[in-house]
Formats: sequence, C-alpha cells, structure tokens
Amino acid sequence: MKQQVADRMRGISAFYVMELLQRAKQLEREGRDVIHMEIGEPDFPTPQAVIDAGRALLKTGEVKYTAAAGLPELREAIAEHYVRQYGVKVDPGRVFITPGASGAFLLAFGISLNPGEQVMMADPCYPCNDNFVRLFNGQTHFVNVGADTEYQLTADLIAQNWRPNSKGVLAASPSNPTGTLLNGADLKYAIDQVHRLGGCFYSDEIYHGLIYDQPAATALAHGDDAFVINSFSKFFGMTGWRVGWLVVPDDFVEAAEKLAQNIFISTPTHSQHAALASFTEDNLAELERRRLEFKARRDFLYTNLLKLGFKIACKPEGAFYIYADCSAFTDNSFAFAGELLEREGVAVTPGRDFGKYRADKHIRFAYTASIDRMAEALTRLERFICR
Amino acid sequence: MKQQVADRMRGISAFYVMELLQRAKQLEREGRDVIHMEIGEPDFPTPQAVIDAGRALLKTGEVKYTAAAGLPELREAIAEHYVRQYGVKVDPGRVFITPGASGAFLLAFGISLNPGEQVMMADPCYPCNDNFVRLFNGQTHFVNVGADTEYQLTADLIAQNWRPNSKGVLAASPSNPTGTLLNGADLKYAIDQVHRLGGCFYSDEIYHGLIYDQPAATALAHGDDAFVINSFSKFFGMTGWRVGWLVVPDDFVEAAEKLAQNIFISTPTHSQHAALASFTEDNLAELERRRLEFKARRDFLYTNLLKLGFKIACKPEGAFYIYADCSAFTDNSFAFAGELLEREGVAVTPGRDFGKYRADKHIRFAYTASIDRMAEALTRLERFICR
Repeated sequence: MKQQVADRMRGISAFYVMELLQRAKQLEREGRDVIHMEIGEPDFPTPQAVIDAGRALLKTGEVKYTAAAGLPELREAIAEHYVRQYGVKVDPGRVFITPGASGAFLLAFGISLNPGEQVMMADPCYPCNDNFVRLFNGQTHFVNVGADTEYQLTADLIAQNWRPNSKGVLAASPSNPTGTLLNGADLKYAIDQVHRLGGCFYSDEIYHGLIYDQPAATALAHGDDAFVINSFSKFFGMTGWRVGWLVVPDDFVEAAEKLAQNIFISTPTHSQHAALASFTEDNLAELERRRLEFKARRDFLYTNLLKLGFKIACKPEGAFYIYADCSAFTDNSFAFAGELLEREGVAVTPGRDFGKYRADKHIRFAYTASIDRMAEALTRLERFICR
Repeated sequence: MKQQVADRMRGISAFYVMELLQRAKQLEREGRDVIHMEIGEPDFPTPQAVIDAGRALLKTGEVKYTAAAGLPELREAIAEHYVRQYGVKVDPGRVFITPGASGAFLLAFGISLNPGEQVMMADPCYPCNDNFVRLFNGQTHFVNVGADTEYQLTADLIAQNWRPNSKGVLAASPSNPTGTLLNGADLKYAIDQVHRLGGCFYSDEIYHGLIYDQPAATALAHGDDAFVINSFSKFFGMTGWRVGWLVVPDDFVEAAEKLAQNIFISTPTHSQHAALASFTEDNLAELERRRLEFKARRDFLYTNLLKLGFKIACKPEGAFYIYADCSAFTDNSFAFAGELLEREGVAVTPGRDFGKYRADKHIRFAYTASIDRMAEALTRLERFICR
C-alpha cells in the first residue's frame, strides 16, 4: 500500500491559463514582447495611502495575531462602507475578515456545505468556485447560461435545477468571465427563490466597485440571509496583500468564528491595518480615477473586438473582462490562445478555464493593460486572424 | 426548511482560552493588571531586518500575486535552511509557501485525506489539528500519551492503534502543549512504521528552532515521504504576517500545486519578501539571543512551578510551554484557570483545550512573558494556591 492523493484531487484541475502564463514568461525571458491580457489582476500598484498605512504599521514592529474575525475597526469600516455605498445597514458582527476572497469561500463553504450536497453555479464561471465545493466533497451543479439571461442564473433556472441534495446557489455579479450583472429585481427574485427552497445564497461580489454603467446591488440589500464574499484585491488594488471579507447570516456567526480561529488564526495583520486606509476620501477619489480608466479601456476593447469580428453577446458592465465569441475564427479557442501567444505575443485566457458550455468558442480578454498596449495587441490580433 | 450550519461544525469547538482572553481583556479595560501566560505567541516584536525588508517591498507599491507555490527564491532559501540547519537536502520544488502553518495544514489534509479516513494524534495536542481533520470530514483517532513516551506517539502505539481506515499519523515535535520532542531513533521508527503501514506521516515542526537542550530532528532526515509543516511565526517571530510552509512527498507535488492555486491564489507577497530576510547571519544571531532568553525563562518557570507543588512529568525541551499537573490543588483545571484570572490576574490555558486525557488535571503555562513578569505571576500564583 502506498500513501495516496485524496480522491477529491482527481476532480480539481489546474488553470489552463497558468500553462499559458508560464509559456508567456518563457517567451519574455527569450526577449519576446508579450502583452498580458490573461491575468485577473489590476495593473495599477496598490494606492499610496494604503501602502503608507502598511508601512506605518510595520514600523511599530508589532505584527501580532489579530482576533480571528479580524480587527474590530476594519469590520466596522466595512459595515460603514455598506451604508455609504449601498444604503444598507450590516451588523459588523456578521463581517469576517479573511485571507482574500479565497479565505471567504473556504469559510463560507466550510461552515455550510456537507459532503454530497450540491451548489448551483452558472457555466461559464470562475473555476475556483467549483473547486472550493469539491474541496469539501460537495458537488457543483452547473447550469448553462447565455445571453438570454445575461450569463446569470435566474429565479426560474434555480427552481428548474433545484434537487433534493441542493444546498445553495452561487452567483457572481459582476461575473468573471462575462462581466455581466445580476441586478435589481432579478437579484431579489433569485435570492428569494433560493431562500424559499430552503437553501443558501452565496453572492460573489468581489468585483463590486468596478462597475461602469449602473450602480451594483449587493445581496445584503435583500435581507440578512445571504452569504456575501468580497475582497480588497480588485477594486481596492490589494491583490498580493490577501485580505477580503465574508458576511454571514446571523445563524452562521458562531460557526464562522470557530472555523476562522482554526483555519486562519487570523488574516495578515499589516494587510488589515493597510486596508483600513482604503476608505479615506482621498483614496476613494483615486479609486474612482482608476474606475474611469477601466471604463475607457472596456469601451475601447469592446468596440475594437467587435470590429475585428468577435461576437460579444452582452456588453460587460463590470469587472475587467470581455468574454468574446471567437467562433468566426476557430472552433478551438484553447489552440487559438496558444497560437496567438506563440505567433504574436498576445496572452489571453481560453474559455475552457471557465466551464464546458460553448467554452471552445470563447476567449476571455482582461483589460488590465493600458489602452496603448491594447491597441498594439489589437493590431497583432488582426494580423493573426487574417493570416 | 432552513439554511443550516454544516454537520462538521458540531464537532469543531472554539478554544476555551479565547473566552479567557476575552475576560482578561475586559479586566484590563477595568484597570486590572493581567499577566498573560495563555497565549501561543512570542512577546518579541518581529526582528528589525524582517520589518525593513517588508517595508522596502511595500515602498515599491508592487504587492501583486506571487506564484501559488510561493516566491521561487523563498522556496530555495528554505531548502538551503534544511541543508544548513539539519544537513538535509530538499528539492525546493517540494516546498510550498502557505498562509502560516494553518495554510500548510489545510493544504496537507486537502490533498491527502478522504472523508471517513482517520488521522492518529496524541492526546494532549494542539486543538486545531483535530479540527483540520474534521474540516475534511475525516476522523481523529486520539491516543492517550503520558510521561512514559514523553507525550509522544511511538512506533508501537502507532501499530497498536492502526485501523483499516487510518490514513496517517500527525506528530508534533516539539509538542504543544508539552514541549517534548519526538527525536532521534524514535522519530525514525515512527516514520518507518507509518510508511510500512502505507500511511502518511504528518510532521508538525512549527516550533523548530525553539529547542533548548539538544538539536531537533526533522522528519525530512528520514526519507522524502513525510509531510512537514513549518512556519515563520514562532522561531522567526512573524506571527501576524501569516507565512509558513509545507514540504510534500514527490507524489503530492502536482496536487499541492493545483490546490494552492485554488484555495490561496498565493501567500501574502510582502510577508514572503520579508521572510526572505530571516536567513541573514545578523538576523539568525538575533534569533539565537531570543532562543537563549526563552531557555532562561523555561528554566526559571520550570524550577519555580515545581517548588510551588506543580508536577511536570517531562521537562519540556522546546516551544514555549510548560504543561503542568495541578492536581495537588484542583481536579478542575478549567475552573482553576478561571479563578486564577479573576482573583489574581494571571491568565493560563486550561488542559481541556488540548484534549480529554487527564485534561482536568493540567494547565498550560506559556513563557511568553519576561522573567520579571513571571516572577510576579508566581507570587500571585502562590498566594492563590495557599488561599
């Protein structure tokens, strides 16, 4: 007998984009110029106010554990953020600071999901979501979605796909990879449907703030029973700091407290203190400038991808992704992405990283590069598809 | 139907010491002087070289995600540390940087443990260990240990307690709460036994470096098939930074890579860069001074607890804990700890945080306070037990 890898790992795959990224870095080492539109990370540095707050904390030398649920003042600052941003009152006692949204997902599923239970998700969606469910020996029930529902689950889809072993529904708004929203009445109907069925609604709101045409709604606006996952990574520009949060329903507060003690001890202390500086007026103004830059990039990339013959079923309203149908050029987007990198030095993410449904006809472009760089990428892309 | 907490949470308890800590803080707010000997955190600040490295990285503003497995240069530095410290060669490709030892445990059990499988552990041991197993719906098989085996599992105990659904054995050396070692031939026999039985050996080495009388052995000295959990928190003085590591057997490298991508994305970037500064000669000299201070504290506390009438079955050789038998004074160490805090403002951890076996007769003292403060604590303790 031999020590063996756990069964769950058979169902957990590496991201295809990681292979691409490795290859991109190798090409760069060989002197090639690569334009990175594959990575889900803002290209801006962390805002100066946040950097300064982190450095000030480090200067004290006192980087000790915090309470497992996080710094009380940060939990309160997040609760105030919900009032200011959405007009929604949230008890800070329901806000748990986590090591990134990754930690928030760990905590959310750890306290709620039993082995064998199902979580419903849209296909396409972010690949980690399924893998968190698999980590706890749950099952993901993927529901194919398209332009007719703006790539989102609806109350009807939820009802049709609910099973005896369904535990809940995970919705991401804005969605990665499509950038579409579940908003307004649709969000309320979806939440109400899940709660009527007795399940948990997990709302992935990690791209909130990066929304361009209409205000985003939080699940917290529709009662106190949703799980809300958010993060300082994307809008607040703090990816490498690893600090996010989870809001849980009252009935899960005690469980979240216990599990956080055990699996995190606490979230990085310097990152928590730095995150506190995110909510100053000056910093919020800086983040607004960045949001407008992302919006200009979206408009530029959207317009030009359409011109080149990509189809984009729904104009993305948030995050920094465009999920483009490349079936005019290929029926194998994975090979397409690989060749595009090799021949033209443009890195994008193939659809298969986000699911199975029409994945081979789609490419995800991240507009985490400047408009100048994207213009160059578009020139190369045009040459590539006209080859 | 109502959304419900996952079944696993019924078996996961909060730490009793957390209630005590809350109460201690309340007493302090009321103006009482509390001597903290309950907390598993060094009282020294993070070393200056590490602080400086963290601040230098922050100054760049570039706190982006790293590779999921960690900064290549940090993985290499840890591999070199094994050569320098233990004369053991480890492939850096087997070293995964994690958010603290907590992350290392998540990763180790996530890639190896199936629901329903058992992990064997000593009682007493660190309470999180059992809870990590429960998180993945595994079962902990506790084996009562005492002074006859220096509170450690032995090859014989492992064989006697092995079951058809046993997955492996977790050993901690130095142990929390007892400070005892599994060392030399005993370590080799235990590892060989587990591998002969076809299981996984999980070696918790997070207190390595804080060892006072003999060199500590790493499981890595006895082949490439053990899982080794370590951390920058304790010896290196970086608790709040959340950076640790896991060494996995070759057969688990691919799984560890995949799971780390999914559940961490990466370990805090600034913490990883800061940790790199741990291995400079000057910093290691500073850590040696701290080690000698801990040793002096251990000797002071050990001698004086014996004088007061506590029994200490094995003189602790590492970590910063003394697990003292208080049965001369009480058969309810939980109540004893509570009253000691209320009456004398001395905070210690009751045995029941570490298991069931003779837990009510034991108290854990952490010597994370200065000798002066401990002298005052001993005065109060004497008054308390002579009341």
